[in-house]
Amino acid sequence: MPFASYQDASLRQVELRDTVLAPRIRTALETTIPSALEKCRVTGRLAAFDLTWKEGMPNCPHIFWDSDVAKVLEGVAYSLALQPNAALEAEYDRLVERIASAQQEDGYLNTHFTVVEPEKRWTNLCTNHELYCAGHLMEAAVAGYEMLGKRRFLEVMCRYADYIAQVFGRGEGQKRGYPGHEEIELALVRLFQATGERRYLDLARYFVDERGQSPNYFTEVEHQNPFGSMDYFQADRPVRELQEAKGHAVRAVYLYSGMADVARLTQDESLLQACQRLFQNLTTRRMYVTGGIGSSFHGEVLTRDYDLTNGSLMYAESCAAMGLVFFAHRMLKATGEGQYADILELALFNGVLSGISLSGDRFFYTNYLEVDDNTQVYNAGAKERQPWFECSCCPTNFCRFLPRALQYVWSLGANEVRLNLPLANTLRNEWGEFQVEGGYPYQEEVRITAKTSRPVTLSLRIPGWCRHPQLLLDGTPVALPPVQGYVSLEERIWTGKETLLLHLPMPVETLHANLKVTSNAGRIALKRGPIVFACETIDNPLGVANLILPSPQNFSLTTAPGLPQGTPAIAGTAIAEAAPDPQALYFSQPLQRTPVPFTAIPYALWQNRGPANMAVWMRTRD
Amino acid sequence: MPFASYQDASLRQVELRDTVLAPRIRTALETTIPSALEKCRVTGRLAAFDLTWKEGMPNCPHIFWDSDVAKVLEGVAYSLALQPNAALEAEYDRLVERIASAQQEDGYLNTHFTVVEPEKRWTNLCTNHELYCAGHLMEAAVAGYEMLGKRRFLEVMCRYADYIAQVFGRGEGQKRGYPGHEEIELALVRLFQATGERRYLDLARYFVDERGQSPNYFTEVEHQNPFGSMDYFQADRPVRELQEAKGHAVRAVYLYSGMADVARLTQDESLLQACQRLFQNLTTRRMYVTGGIGSSFHGEVLTRDYDLTNGSLMYAESCAAMGLVFFAHRMLKATGEGQYADILELALFNGVLSGISLSGDRFFYTNYLEVDDNTQVYNAGAKERQPWFECSCCPTNFCRFLPRALQYVWSLGANEVRLNLPLANTLRNEWGEFQVEGGYPYQEEVRITAKTSRPVTLSLRIPGWCRHPQLLLDGTPVALPPVQGYVSLEERIWTGKETLLLHLPMPVETLHANLKVTSNAGRIALKRGPIVFACETIDNPLGVANLILPSPQNFSLTTAPGLPQGTPAIAGTAIAEAAPDPQALYFSQPLQRTPVPFTAIPYALWQNRGPANMAVWMRTRD
Repeated sequence: MPFASYQDASLRQVELRDTVLAPRIRTALETTIPSALEKCRVTGRLAAFDLTWKEGMPNCPHIFWDSDVAKVLEGVAYSLALQPNAALEAEYDRLVERIASAQQEDGYLNTHFTVVEPEKRWTNLCTNHELYCAGHLMEAAVAGYEMLGKRRFLEVMCRYADYIAQVFGRGEGQKRGYPGHEEIELALVRLFQATGERRYLDLARYFVDERGQSPNYFTEVEHQNPFGSMDYFQADRPVRELQEAKGHAVRAVYLYSGMADVARLTQDESLLQACQRLFQNLTTRRMYVTGGIGSSFHGEVLTRDYDLTNGSLMYAESCAAMGLVFFAHRMLKATGEGQYADILELALFNGVLSGISLSGDRFFYTNYLEVDDNTQVYNAGAKERQPWFECSCCPTNFCRFLPRALQYVWSLGANEVRLNLPLANTLRNEWGEFQVEGGYPYQEEVRITAKTSRPVTLSLRIPGWCRHPQLLLDGTPVALPPVQGYVSLEERIWTGKETLLLHLPMPVETLHANLKVTSNAGRIALKRGPIVFACETIDNPLGVANLILPSPQNFSLTTAPGLPQGTPAIAGTAIAEAAPDPQALYFSQPLQRTPVPFTAIPYALWQNRGPANMAVWMRTRD
Repeated sequence: MPFASYQDASLRQVELRDTVLAPRIRTALETTIPSALEKCRVTGRLAAFDLTWKEGMPNCPHIFWDSDVAKVLEGVAYSLALQPNAALEAEYDRLVERIASAQQEDGYLNTHFTVVEPEKRWTNLCTNHELYCAGHLMEAAVAGYEMLGKRRFLEVMCRYADYIAQVFGRGEGQKRGYPGHEEIELALVRLFQATGERRYLDLARYFVDERGQSPNYFTEVEHQNPFGSMDYFQADRPVRELQEAKGHAVRAVYLYSGMADVARLTQDESLLQACQRLFQNLTTRRMYVTGGIGSSFHGEVLTRDYDLTNGSLMYAESCAAMGLVFFAHRMLKATGEGQYADILELALFNGVLSGISLSGDRFFYTNYLEVDDNTQVYNAGAKERQPWFECSCCPTNFCRFLPRALQYVWSLGANEVRLNLPLANTLRNEWGEFQVEGGYPYQEEVRITAKTSRPVTLSLRIPGWCRHPQLLLDGTPVALPPVQGYVSLEERIWTGKETLLLHLPMPVETLHANLKVTSNAGRIALKRGPIVFACETIDNPLGVANLILPSPQNFSLTTAPGLPQGTPAIAGTAIAEAAPDPQALYFSQPLQRTPVPFTAIPYALWQNRGPANMAVWMRTRD
């Protein structure tokens, strides 16, 4: 199995101009990141690093607070790279100093376990999030270094990582532990890539390899087992033996991301095979049509094949969809296969973006595929995104996720530039300038030009969802189908005169779900290109549960009021059912049926025009 | 508002011969009660009354254990009345002595709070179940007295009740408390009826009236609030002000039952109005089509109008359906209105009987209306009834519920005999003999004869579900419609020569649910007479979620293998859907559709032929 070795383009090299992702990134810089930073301040998360908290004081540092600050700070680094701001940079520097000041003599850095429960340091890796927080701080430090060239934070975190490497390992006197919430694995890989220090990759590999070995560290050493089964922590067996995507969804995909990184960088085939197996199980058996994952809110877990209910029971946490993007991105880098970009794109445009409001300051933790009046019984926030949460992992994750999403647009190989997401943008690097125009992902036409100073192979991803793609180079059809999802144009010096026209037809597709997804029996989901649609009561005032969408029918494209200009909506004819007595609980009289127009909007954009009921999977009939 | 004053027939006076309830009662006597008694023995529940448990010993008496023993013992009393058994009676007497021996000097009787946490007596009425256990012991004692004339247990419990009356009340030095789990209210009413001692009715009324008054006893005196809202305990406001059926479903209907009793016996109109309001809300907005109640397994609670999902989220505890029968029975006695008998019958034949296997020794705690492979993620016992539970309220409740169900067949008024459930049976009392023949509830024809020694009005319930009933007296049509659900035949001395033929046509009805019950949109339930049907994969091996039942269609009656002789099944034509690739998670190819026969069986009888998937609400199309 040959490993691919694609690199990401730097965020600074990509100028994004599309109408879907670019505005979200802009809003992240202007709203999400500043407001999350403010939330961190007012909730005491920043002050926690002063280590002045004492018993009886308010704002006791929580075990995951450090990670929130780290994620926001990582976002600030990207923000400063994309949009320099002297005041913000000064604040960034002060905050880094504040964090550095919390570092202990030995290198340890954790606010909770320094001031609240110092006696418990490293005593409960299973649930205490210490290594998780360390990982996020490392990612933040790497971002500051890579984006801004700042070494201070990086050095602090290298010291912490070196201390962690002393504490954990297979040597005498070391703890053979690993984190209950994975994250440090992929963070150490980033630290290795930023510093070139192989020991960080080795430590990442240790955490991956040691996981789930016998005797089990959590149950046999720590005597912890809070969720009754070690598969909640992906620690029921060594990671190479994992067969199914199981347990806490975010933890799972963070681990798998770290595994994929380690596999690629150490050319570890058995580890990559495990990643491929887990990816297949996750995305072809346990993933919502939106790219959301985690079908039970009990423990926020992945459950079993085809258990994918839409409503109150489900979870599909925003962070889990982001984690799926992380995993897919790493699999794409390790294999170069377009199937991973397909899932990356699906999760990005649907299950991730649904988690944040267009205004950038409201968030879903749970991304339901169906919300009705009853959903609120189980989750008071089901119908409206919230500004913040007690456990605010999702809002802070968006701070860093969104600006970094720029890196998914292109991959760079040896002499090869690959366009993963054909969004309107310009990539400028030392080889030249690569320009993409068009309205993707909402429109079908993509126009690509390039001007290079050296011979470059230009590869274009042909999305897996596209049945009849066409590619013209200066008017001449280029032979398709693609190889592993990409079509490569022979290495050449691009003069800027060649025009590549990529036509990606986007008919409205009606998807069925496997009949074992019992709640979707008799229902269809509408998808166009990579975008999944949903019906919201805003556009369908008679309701959504009582609408039937006859299929096949000639759907047409339209717009829906109150959504960003250019957002497509799907229009068609539905049958609205009504009961003879709208109060009656059970009745045998026939339902009244009326043909009505219906409108479906991109799922990710629901609940941006007020609270509403919504459904992705709509009843159908032929 | 005039109060009715109907009495129950004594269990001993009713000889039941029908093919649905009578065999269940027989099995209760032969299997359920003896096996539950044995379970109480092996789990230490009986030995708990010896008060010998000490710290470190096994089988620590749990706070609700006394109630389990009491319910089984209540069942034993009925069993001995219906089927004398010298050995069982000797065991009964010994067990009563064992319980009596646990009574403290002051009259207190509770195993847990005598030996495990004596310092906590009466300190946490909110969650500690002391008064709940007391109530069940009282009911058991009353049953022993009424059925067998035994006074010993009754005297023990009167002493306990007198002690409770000292502790609780509005007098100086008394606690103004009331139970977190209602039960003692209706038990005290039974104690009053058995002894004629008004003080027990007064105490019942005190517990009803004091509930939810300000300051709230649970939150303000005990400082308890484990479920965040006092409506979980029906204690958020005084009971007369309750507007909606809320909180823990079993607690709710036990309270309402006690309220209805107190209202009837004290001619308390405002209290009866509250009961009527709660009954309406409960049964016309929050009840499953099977008579099951409690739509969330989070807290086993009633949630909101039209929140009635079928699968993993739901609860519909067996005890709650029994409690609905208790409530309906008391409303029937207080008002004489047939609507209450309609609900009693619905819950009895469907939501209650589904909770127990035909073999009498396996139980559902949760009575799902839909079970698929995914239900097991949330409840390992979803697909198969279990022999016992850690909290075994449902199995022990069946011990007393089933034999006592005989009393629902008839009501007795002044000079009036009312047939509530036209099951084949004979009532023999001091007025004469009343004979009912026919195959109800499975067959349409009922034949009634009577022979009395004095003038008696004979009233027959005309079920609310029946659209075109006919009644013939010696071949002559009797004028219908009925008054408040009953047709009364003029007072006369019945000679045994008159023949009443009641014809209750039972076409198969296809029911729709309110469209706000979103999971039932596009679905129908099949009902025939009072019996709700379900499709089980045993009879429908291609599956149930993928079946569509076109409607209207000519359903026919058939039988299903492995069910008791005479059990009707509904047969018809369904459309079975299949996916082109049975593994694919999402796909756009059309489904394959094949007409297939389908069979639906009475819901209460599902999972008596092995584990299976099942659905009450089936997809439909016209």
